[in-house]
Amino acid sequence: MNVIKLKPPYLIFVGDVTELTYVKTGAGLAQWRPDLCAGQLSLVSPGIDLGLPAMTVEQAIAANVGSLIIGTATVGGVIPDGWLDTLVQAAEAGLDIVSGAHGRLQDNPHLAAAAQRSGAKLVDVRVPPVGLPVASGKKRSGKRLLTVGTDCAVGKKYTALALHAAMKNAGMDADFRATGQTGIMISGQGIPMDAVVSDFLAGAAEQLSPDNSPEHWDIIEGQGAIVHPAYGAVSVGLLMGSQPDAFVVCHEAGRTHVAGWPEIPLVKIAEIILRTTAVGRLTNPSIRCVGVSVNTSALAADARETYLRRLEQQLGLPCVDPLVEGVDALIECLVNDVIPETVA
Amino acid sequence: MNVIKLKPPYLIFVGDVTELTYVKTGAGLAQWRPDLCAGQLSLVSPGIDLGLPAMTVEQAIAANVGSLIIGTATVGGVIPDGWLDTLVQAAEAGLDIVSGAHGRLQDNPHLAAAAQRSGAKLVDVRVPPVGLPVASGKKRSGKRLLTVGTDCAVGKKYTALALHAAMKNAGMDADFRATGQTGIMISGQGIPMDAVVSDFLAGAAEQLSPDNSPEHWDIIEGQGAIVHPAYGAVSVGLLMGSQPDAFVVCHEAGRTHVAGWPEIPLVKIAEIILRTTAVGRLTNPSIRCVGVSVNTSALAADARETYLRRLEQQLGLPCVDPLVEGVDALIECLVNDVIPETVA
Repeated sequence: MNVIKLKPPYLIFVGDVTELTYVKTGAGLAQWRPDLCAGQLSLVSPGIDLGLPAMTVEQAIAANVGSLIIGTATVGGVIPDGWLDTLVQAAEAGLDIVSGAHGRLQDNPHLAAAAQRSGAKLVDVRVPPVGLPVASGKKRSGKRLLTVGTDCAVGKKYTALALHAAMKNAGMDADFRATGQTGIMISGQGIPMDAVVSDFLAGAAEQLSPDNSPEHWDIIEGQGAIVHPAYGAVSVGLLMGSQPDAFVVCHEAGRTHVAGWPEIPLVKIAEIILRTTAVGRLTNPSIRCVGVSVNTSALAADARETYLRRLEQQLGLPCVDPLVEGVDALIECLVNDVIPETVA
Repeated sequence: MNVIKLKPPYLIFVGDVTELTYVKTGAGLAQWRPDLCAGQLSLVSPGIDLGLPAMTVEQAIAANVGSLIIGTATVGGVIPDGWLDTLVQAAEAGLDIVSGAHGRLQDNPHLAAAAQRSGAKLVDVRVPPVGLPVASGKKRSGKRLLTVGTDCAVGKKYTALALHAAMKNAGMDADFRATGQTGIMISGQGIPMDAVVSDFLAGAAEQLSPDNSPEHWDIIEGQGAIVHPAYGAVSVGLLMGSQPDAFVVCHEAGRTHVAGWPEIPLVKIAEIILRTTAVGRLTNPSIRCVGVSVNTSALAADARETYLRRLEQQLGLPCVDPLVEGVDALIECLVNDVIPETVA
């Protein structure tokens, strides 16, 4: 499988950042993969606390840490001067350095030299692997679920991670397949689909979820929305190459227009289901929707339940807020074809 | 407009090739843009004759030629040793060198050095321009027609060029907008869509056909097919960013499966019309199909007419073989909403 791969365990570096808002990646790692996070390193005190053991670079080396992961956003994608000594020290000592920023680690001459001396890798998770193939369109063994969206930033990654965790909990054989930089850091591997050259997009999606055993599920993180005015092509390539057997639509309650495109109204969930099924059938005729995952945080607490149950009646499918009630209803629909009692 | 641009007039270089099959680009230029082709240069005698004046590099310089265009396919994308002296001589003299091969001209050190000395540009038309934006989704002024396909290599470029030529002939205000390497060479400008990073695909399509006067038509060369197992995403991004008012479906009579994907049946023309309309409506609600352009060369001469008239009755739209009967019926449908008499 031709994908980016990270070397665990991780030291999560949070620089001199003091607001948790800017430490999405670090927080995601600590939440979803605590077993892979050996420690955290802040340059200030008190700094961000992700609930991991505080660790210096020396301690990380003694603890056989594989990678230092930059867990914060950097302004303009450039590494701040104050961070460089620590990163160079880690690279010099042989730790891989992992970044999700737009700027490339390799472009920093100090870091590049340190990595070359030690043999450490500088991993930019926004840079796709080389040599991605053109899609074959061939059906692969094993099963796949893709989270799709009515828009960007509606919980596709969260829903996929929650589904994966619940399936593992239930003793099912499943992998999370990451398609964006934060997902790749959490998963430890993946392909940043939006950075792939168009001709190889569906081929990259095929690489990401290769043949597997018949009962195995790949839970694939979706990107964008197939109806999105700018990113629709990314979503379509991912859908066609993923060949999903099942999909979950992700949505944010109360969102009426495409985020960042205030003149463009959001396409309704029911239409997203129809369009996703129509495109998905091209490479997997048995594709079906197994439910909807809604971020209801914008609704009043007493309106959430009404909203979700009404949506279930409209669509005939389970509708959940994964943060409030989990995703078990979606898995019930996926595995046993059970739909909620609210659906007539 | 952030697109590749070539400097006319052109010297068409055909190397030591002796079979016209391998000179598709050169032949396309001589056919569609004879006014921009100052001459041809073959390294052998008798070599390929495109019907242009034979010209040495010295004569081309004297004639104020802007670019030497490599008009032939190169095996494996590498410039043959026997061609290099001529290309270096041209670059040294300040002629831009234009190539559609996979390998980059800049990677040849002799050519790179010669171009640097003279200030000539080395133009790889497979390499997209830098700084392409994310799509805005905003409606642009002027009108647009996109050729779409049931598959790759079904006449989308030819049909767009024929429509453009016929519209110019009829005194209409129109531009041909190229999206692939041969089209870019013929047009002298364009963007190779399949090489654009996925996130910027629709944005590239928006750049390619900017705001224009109300009666102006951009005739946009299509790529792939929105249902293609590997290249569907390219076609969708081009469709969404182009925001076409009209489209023509291109097809090859007798083709039953996706070329190169023998297990995947071709999607029917009627379904391509429905799917293209559904996706196109997302960025231009008034999109409509104005006809079908069929390559009927695989049919017996007496079967062509029957095939086309039956297709017209099925679809309620003009269906033409552009090489046999031209594209006037498509323009009639586009401009005056006239459909053929055969349609009940």
